[in-house]
Formats: sequence, C-alpha cells, structure tokens
Amino acid sequence: MFDPVEKLKEFIRFPSVSTDPSSGAGMRGAQTFVSSLLTSIGFSVEVVPTELHPIIWAQREGNPAWPHLVIYGHYDVQPADPLNLWKTPAFEPTIIGNRIYGRGAADNKGPLLTNIAAVAKALEDDPQLPLRITFLIEGEEEMGSPSFPKFLERYADKLRAADFVYLSDTGLPNENQVVITAGLRGLALFDVHITGAKSDLHSGLHGGVLLNPIQALSEILASLHTPDGRVNVPGFYDAVLDVESWERDELKKLGGDEQRYAEFLGIEAFHVAPGFSPFEAVRFQPTLEFNGIGGGYQGEGTKTVIPSKAFAKISCRLVPNQQPELIKQLVMATIRARTPKGVKLEFVDQHKGDPYVVVPPDRANTPANQSPILARAFRATHAAIAEVWGRPPIYLREGGSVPIIAEIKRVTGLDSVMLGLFLPEDNLHAPNESFNLDVMRKGTETTRRMLHALARG
Amino acid sequence: MFDPVEKLKEFIRFPSVSTDPSSGAGMRGAQTFVSSLLTSIGFSVEVVPTELHPIIWAQREGNPAWPHLVIYGHYDVQPADPLNLWKTPAFEPTIIGNRIYGRGAADNKGPLLTNIAAVAKALEDDPQLPLRITFLIEGEEEMGSPSFPKFLERYADKLRAADFVYLSDTGLPNENQVVITAGLRGLALFDVHITGAKSDLHSGLHGGVLLNPIQALSEILASLHTPDGRVNVPGFYDAVLDVESWERDELKKLGGDEQRYAEFLGIEAFHVAPGFSPFEAVRFQPTLEFNGIGGGYQGEGTKTVIPSKAFAKISCRLVPNQQPELIKQLVMATIRARTPKGVKLEFVDQHKGDPYVVVPPDRANTPANQSPILARAFRATHAAIAEVWGRPPIYLREGGSVPIIAEIKRVTGLDSVMLGLFLPEDNLHAPNESFNLDVMRKGTETTRRMLHALARG
Repeated sequence: MFDPVEKLKEFIRFPSVSTDPSSGAGMRGAQTFVSSLLTSIGFSVEVVPTELHPIIWAQREGNPAWPHLVIYGHYDVQPADPLNLWKTPAFEPTIIGNRIYGRGAADNKGPLLTNIAAVAKALEDDPQLPLRITFLIEGEEEMGSPSFPKFLERYADKLRAADFVYLSDTGLPNENQVVITAGLRGLALFDVHITGAKSDLHSGLHGGVLLNPIQALSEILASLHTPDGRVNVPGFYDAVLDVESWERDELKKLGGDEQRYAEFLGIEAFHVAPGFSPFEAVRFQPTLEFNGIGGGYQGEGTKTVIPSKAFAKISCRLVPNQQPELIKQLVMATIRARTPKGVKLEFVDQHKGDPYVVVPPDRANTPANQSPILARAFRATHAAIAEVWGRPPIYLREGGSVPIIAEIKRVTGLDSVMLGLFLPEDNLHAPNESFNLDVMRKGTETTRRMLHALARG
Repeated sequence: MFDPVEKLKEFIRFPSVSTDPSSGAGMRGAQTFVSSLLTSIGFSVEVVPTELHPIIWAQREGNPAWPHLVIYGHYDVQPADPLNLWKTPAFEPTIIGNRIYGRGAADNKGPLLTNIAAVAKALEDDPQLPLRITFLIEGEEEMGSPSFPKFLERYADKLRAADFVYLSDTGLPNENQVVITAGLRGLALFDVHITGAKSDLHSGLHGGVLLNPIQALSEILASLHTPDGRVNVPGFYDAVLDVESWERDELKKLGGDEQRYAEFLGIEAFHVAPGFSPFEAVRFQPTLEFNGIGGGYQGEGTKTVIPSKAFAKISCRLVPNQQPELIKQLVMATIRARTPKGVKLEFVDQHKGDPYVVVPPDRANTPANQSPILARAFRATHAAIAEVWGRPPIYLREGGSVPIIAEIKRVTGLDSVMLGLFLPEDNLHAPNESFNLDVMRKGTETTRRMLHALARG
C-alpha cells in the first residue's frame, strides 16, 4: 500500500493547468501518474483520448450482481496566478502543520487521492471485495469539461450498467461537520467585449467626442444587479425552484456563524439578496458574477488614452431548475439592449453546466423510484461518517459546480453520492490553496468503511 | 548643417519611455543625443540633474537688448505598448511615403527636431542673428513633469529675463491649415482602487454573499457621467469660463467635417455634451475619462473567481479656469460618497496640470499689458505661416495638455507661442505613431522665417 501523502506530493508537482496551452507536460505527467497508480492497485486502465486532455477510465470488473460504483475525480487544476501572492511555490508541495500547500491540493488532487487510497486499503483488507469499481478521472474539469459530452455518448451504456457515482469534489463547512452534498449550482459563462474607436486615442486630442468603452462597459455591468443584491435581468429567477423544508432544516443543523464567516472572507458587510442568510444564499440562490475586467492602460503611472476596447468575464451560478443556455441568452439579450449607442458589442461564449440535485433516502421529495443501491450507498456513507467523525453528516446543497455530475444524470440517469472534503480555508481557485491532512486521513477511512458496508449488502 | 530626417531617425531609436524604470539607457541616450546636437550648432549646454530625468538648458547668449525666446520640447516618449498592434517596430524608425513611423516621431521628437533644425538654419543663414535663444528640453513630459516645479524655482529668474516661450507640441487639423494653439487643457489624474474580500474567492463556494469589487467599481464609474455625456460630479463645471466669440469665429474657419472625423476615429456616433459640436467639445469642454481598468482574471478561457481587487485609472482634462487640485478633490469626494458599503476605497494620486490660454494680439480680450515682443512673435509666426503654407493660421485652443506651459506662465509670467505640427493621423500616444515629413520641412522653414523676422524687429 502506497503512502497517500507522499503520493499527493508527487501529484501536486505536475502543473496540470488544463486551460494553459503551455502546460502540456504537466497535464501528461498528472495523467500518467494517476494511470500508473490505478494500475498498481489492480485496475485495468484505459486512457481515452479526447480532442484535448485524455480521460482515465479504470475498471475493477467482477460479478454483475455486485454493486457497481463509479468514482469520479479530475487531475487538472486551476491556473496558479497571481503567483506573487503565493507564500510557498504553487507546484512545490509544502507541508506546514497539518496542511499541504500547493495548487490543486484540495481541488481535486487531495480528495481524489483520498478516494484512491480508500479503494486501495479496502482491497488490501479484502482482495475479494464484492464490488465493481470504475474510476472516471478527467483532465478538463477546470475548463468546463468540453470533451466530456462526446466521451459520455461513447461510454453511456457502460455507465448505465453502474449503480451510482461517488466523488469528493465538494466542501465541508468545518473539520467537525461532514456534509454529503445534495446539490450543485450550474454554470453559464461568457465574456463581453466592447469596442469604441478603431484604436486607442489620445485623451486630450479626442477626449469629449466619443463614448469611452470602459464607460459603456461600466454602465452595462452596473445595470446587471439591483442595489439590494438581486440579479437585474428579466426572467433570471423565473425557473428557480423553491427550497424544500428538509433542506432548511439541514441547514439549521449547520448553525453557521456569520461573524466568523465575514472575518474569514475579510469583508466588512455581507451583500446578500433579500430574504436569505449568507449560508442560504450561497446554496439556494443563483448569481451573476464578474470574474475579471480589463481595458486600456493598467501599468504604473499614467497613460492618457481613450482605450479602443474593454472586456469583462461573466459567470452565472445557477440553481435548479434554471437552464444555462436560456440564462445565457437572457443575460446576453439584456446586455445587448442596454449597450449604449456608439460602441460595438461582442460576446465570446465560454462553457456551461446544468445545476444538480440529488435527494437522499427518506425525504419528503425522495423520488419513489430511487435505486435501492443508491439508497444503500447514502446510508453506508452516512454510517461511516458518523463512526469516523463522531457525528452524522448533514445534507446540503453547495454553491460550487461540477457540471458533469448533472450531465451524467441527464444522459445515464445515474445519481451521485458526494462526500465533501475541502474546508473553506483551503483557498480553492485562489493563491495558497491547501488541503487538511487530518481530513484526508478521515476521508480515506470513511470511504474505506463505506465500501465494506456496501459490499456487505 | 545636419540632415534633419537622418537625425530624427537617430533620435527615435532611443526608447526614451520616461515612465518605464527599465528605459534608463534609452532616456540617457536621447538626452545625450539632444545635448550633443545643440552643442554642435553652437549652444552652451547645461544638463540640469533632477530626481528623475535631467533637463537640458542650452543657451545662445547675446546682447540683452535682443529679443529672447525659450524653445521648449521634450525628449521622452509615451510607452509603446500594446506592441503587437505596431506594424513597424516602435523604436526602429521606418519611412513609408512621406511619413516616418516610430514611438515619439510626432510627440515630440519630430517637432522638437523641426525647431532645432530651424534654429540651425537661421544661424547658418546669419551667424550674427540678433536673437538670444534658450532651449529648455525636459525628459518627464509624458509623466507629468514631476521635477519641473523644482527646476522652475531655480531657473525662474533666468526665464523671467526671456520674452516668450516657443514650442511645437500641439496639433494642426490638416496639412493645409496651420493652427497657432491659443490654449491647452489642464489635467488631473488619479487611480481608484476597490478591495472586497481579503483574497480572490471561489465564485461557487462564496458567490452570492458579498459585493464583487468589479461590480462596486462599475457602479461608481457608471455614475460619473450623465447619459447625455456630461460629467456627473457636483461642482465640476462651476469654474468653466465662457468661450470668447473670436474663438468661435476662428473655429468656424476650420470648417471641420464631422463625417470624416467619425470615420477617422472609426466610431459610429459621436457622444458629445449637449450644446457643443465635436470640434467645440474637444477644445472648450472638460472631460472625465477612464484610461484603464483592471481586476480579476483577464486571461484566455475562464477562472471562476470573485476577485479581491479592481481598479480604474481616471484622467480629467480641464479648461480655463478649472483648478486641477479642486477638481481632483471634487471627483474623489463624489466617488467616496458613491462607494457602496462592503468594499474598501483607496486613491493613488497621479500628476496634474493647470489649463492654459494665451490671447493673440488685437482680440477683444487681449490683455492691455501684453508684451510687445510677444505680440511681434505672434505676428512674425503668422506671416511666416502665411508665406510657407500659402494660408494664414487660425488660432484655436486644443484638447491636449502641456502642463508646464501653464506652470511657466504662473511662475514667471511668460506666455507661449505654440506652432502646431502634428496631424490627427499621427497617432500620438497610440500604436503606429508617425510624423509627416512635409510638415517637418514646412515647419522648419516657418520657424526659420519667424526667427529672421523677429530679429529684424
């Protein structure tokens, strides 16, 4: 049995930034690393080529009567910039106290290795473990999984033969309280580009005769929210489903401390749509967020130009039952209608993903036809968490997105059991990302126990 | 006598970007080049050290009874970025047709060399030319001349002993119509920085609970203009002087073609404060312009962060009698009042400069105590233009700024005769800057004739 922490260090060292065309070696390194590790614990590994980054499909076959789970993860990571804000090198894993620092430590290399280690241990405990296990590990999660739909078409029948998906790519609120993630927000992303004059102009010689594209863009962006924090796009909220009462009850168990959360974020005041607490808003409400903006001179000192161009990167997080394509069209149409005369508007489409919900067994809105093995998996995970962490999990939707989970559900009908493993302080998608090694150890033990329980029937 | 075009090529090759700390060699090269050239035509050159880039003070002494002019220019240039938009290398002068391309070709290396060549020719014509001439050539014009006030304190008495300043750092509307610039806009520049959370955040995990700094910044910027194009800052226009009727008459002589101007800029529609034509607005109206904006992820693809910070670079162009410091305070106070709760606001102060007007002789508002030598200089320049270009000049204020001209006036009382030499298509402060060699030739001849006429009394 390998040492999970040593393996995680090795994994982090590959700079597998899927969106960066210069990260080819890092992507190949991470893929080969995972493939070899799965081979070493007895899986037959197929590296499925795609137009971009291959998908790893690794199987442990067995009796078709056994429960069959598909463990999902991704070997790609977010870009590490701004590099100057990292206190340790982004791709040189550094352990400080009970944390390992490095890009991807928590998203998703640490949690993925946690589950691989759990499988390895369970098979070491019982080489005849009566479970079929498939690993499905992609390399494009951080870029919206563009190759996944084609892969899904080809592998849909194989997936339909499985019982459920299991993954750890979501969060837990604190070290003492595990969450089984009951839903994910969807995504709709695109860029807005505004062009004024055909080139940058001297702001003295021509200032006062034309609309500055930064001004036009600011006016558009400023119009997309109401002062009270709601998205100001007609129709944006039309499809949003009401929150179930059991969901509110679960959230009450969380008992989040708003003051501590504000301090953690480093903000003086929350800015939440009316009628929601911060903890509710992040789970139950959709957003329209500006991820980046640029235009004109951004260097030191001054350059007195009227820039020719300005742009913003927009992402919407969506909740059930919002449709990403429809939301994208609504927001784009609103922007088009609000673009002032005298500038040109262009959109660059980015990726999108459906929101997802899975209802655990025994709730008011649990589907009548829920798969008995999925229900067993939920109960086994619940029991393992209660044993290992000394406290049962709560069931919460989360603000993040793993779009392929909804895509797998849509195409194959498979639901997912999501064991949240990263903490708010793990700094996902930000400088100084890290993963808690105690969580890793407990997570491994949780999944190991879940596997044995599931195997016992 | 040197070849002005060859010398201009040599001058452009020095990348003298004053705002760029890595351009030290280029700055020194340009300074040494100008100093040597002035020495070679008989001037005694003093290189006056400053905290940043030295000022060249070069004199041709003579009888104190002779008229004394100070020729101003600057050897620094704007940054050349975005470099990818240049069709020829920014610092490798390239002649195509009757134009020379390169950063600084028009602002201010070409026009400065035009005037140096004119002086060289006039002294070649008449080595005993009864004029005292001083060159005052700085290296910080493109960064707001931070060292100039201290220099001015030390050299104020020497400047007071002169009669007027002569310069070519302004424009002419087209090749057939020379303008003597009767006024310049002032400047007030600063940056706005908005900070939200203490670091970039995952837009899924935390989206919906806090105010995005890009949103806050957009709201602030969007509020700074009314939809009809006026600056929406209380008190901004209070000190603006009415336009004199002779100024409107001069502008009528220009007979600008709005359609052609719009095509030149590449815009579909003008956006001008009500009551002004584009040609009036750029000369008679103040502006508040956004020169740059930045925040969050600006690369390819997507990065779903809520950025911690966003900033904008703001510049106001001011007209008589607006006071830059007061305007800065007004705009900053307005921004402060409009900054929404939940984000932090900081300003980074940049430079500023007063607006300037000089009234030519024989106008309704010509000062009664106007210096007779200044009046003679205006008339000599007028006559030389009429002879060389076949058409008398018109007298117009211009939208650009040469802040030290107002500063010299304020401290020493000296006014300036400004012979406009760059054309709208010269692309100042923008990629593919160029200078028209016919204008250079005619400009040299104009200044040569002006010098002889002034010497004749």
